[in-house]
Amino acid sequence: MAGKSEAASRRRKAVVLLSGGLDSATAAAIARHDGFDLYALTVSYGQRHAVELSAARRVAAALQVSQHVELAVDLSAFGGSALTSDIPVPRNRSLDAADIPVTYVPARNTVFLSLALGWAEVIGARDIYIGVNAVDYSGYPDCRPAFIDAFERLASLATRAGVEGGPFHIHAPLVHLTKAEIIGRGVELGIDYALTHSCYDPSEAGRPCGTCDSCRLRAKGFAEAGLADPALAG
Amino acid sequence: MAGKSEAASRRRKAVVLLSGGLDSATAAAIARHDGFDLYALTVSYGQRHAVELSAARRVAAALQVSQHVELAVDLSAFGGSALTSDIPVPRNRSLDAADIPVTYVPARNTVFLSLALGWAEVIGARDIYIGVNAVDYSGYPDCRPAFIDAFERLASLATRAGVEGGPFHIHAPLVHLTKAEIIGRGVELGIDYALTHSCYDPSEAGRPCGTCDSCRLRAKGFAEAGLADPALAG
Repeated sequence: MAGKSEAASRRRKAVVLLSGGLDSATAAAIARHDGFDLYALTVSYGQRHAVELSAARRVAAALQVSQHVELAVDLSAFGGSALTSDIPVPRNRSLDAADIPVTYVPARNTVFLSLALGWAEVIGARDIYIGVNAVDYSGYPDCRPAFIDAFERLASLATRAGVEGGPFHIHAPLVHLTKAEIIGRGVELGIDYALTHSCYDPSEAGRPCGTCDSCRLRAKGFAEAGLADPALAG
Repeated sequence: MAGKSEAASRRRKAVVLLSGGLDSATAAAIARHDGFDLYALTVSYGQRHAVELSAARRVAAALQVSQHVELAVDLSAFGGSALTSDIPVPRNRSLDAADIPVTYVPARNTVFLSLALGWAEVIGARDIYIGVNAVDYSGYPDCRPAFIDAFERLASLATRAGVEGGPFHIHAPLVHLTKAEIIGRGVELGIDYALTHSCYDPSEAGRPCGTCDSCRLRAKGFAEAGLADPALAG
């Protein structure tokens, strides 16, 4: 209650990957609930929907992060994904399809976690939060627990902090939750999901398309949670 | 001899991390000698010495790479290294010092390999070459064989290519060589080291300083190989 109390100055730091989407906003709120000071990292990777960046800024402000770094990495230089090139975003695709969709961005979460690791090392953080989820959307290989575990092992070998100090912890608090459970947890923690953005292919004005995988998973999640999506209000 | 022969079109692709320095040029020449078509990736990471980029272009041209991508990632947004911030580059430091020097860039090789992995997946390459070296310069944690092995394990878990196909191979052909051995190998393979650049802190005109760790390791390597450094001629 005393502003910068001694207790507050002893709080630990966590780097949180923040895309501006529903999942990463929830992961960030969980990190804060876990007692961390938040250092939010938003990676702009040449995706078409720059509207995500403004959502990330709104969420970072709402969560009162200690610092928010936006870093541009032009993954469109490599191509290969509907999110970084001219490949069309699929519409009304079966959400139960077992194949990896074209919205998969090659090595995206490996790149994101590597950048988060670099920043964590500089600021003296040992904890990194990422909002990956293997339940409702198991098509992406870099959203699986085995990937997160392998990165955690790598992190401690890759860094001065890992060699000279203790291990890093990669937190993926949503990995085993359904979308409805994620939304329920976020609402408990007071997230205003009106601030977030999920669509892979929004209009110029930033309105979600309603037919891409991400829009439909979000809609299904709110429906199963028995809630209205506040981002669609008005 | 028939230009684009059928044999040539069956050649495998490798992504090679190319900084423009002596080590990465040698690693690239080894990859070519191993029979790969080269896809060179130069990551500009906010380092002070943009002169490296022109060296990378010269080396890429000399090695006749199939494609050269230059990607900007502003690691100076994080700070924490003499190569990305205002921390001074050390002069005439003991090369036998056991500590990790301030020229260490947090998570640099993890970031580089992640980006190389993304590109490899897009172009259908399974092989990535990186010129790390654990002998003459063991101060960097992300130059050790254990790090390379951990990244190789991660790569196959992280990607669609790894899930649906076979594993990735991270080649670190210099990891157990001394600088003199690296130079000897490169000379055998016909590298013109005049094209390369190693200094951490060159003059405006691109001349090496002669006193940073990188200049002194390079000088020691040429001396032990019994050769003159062609980059210092004229």
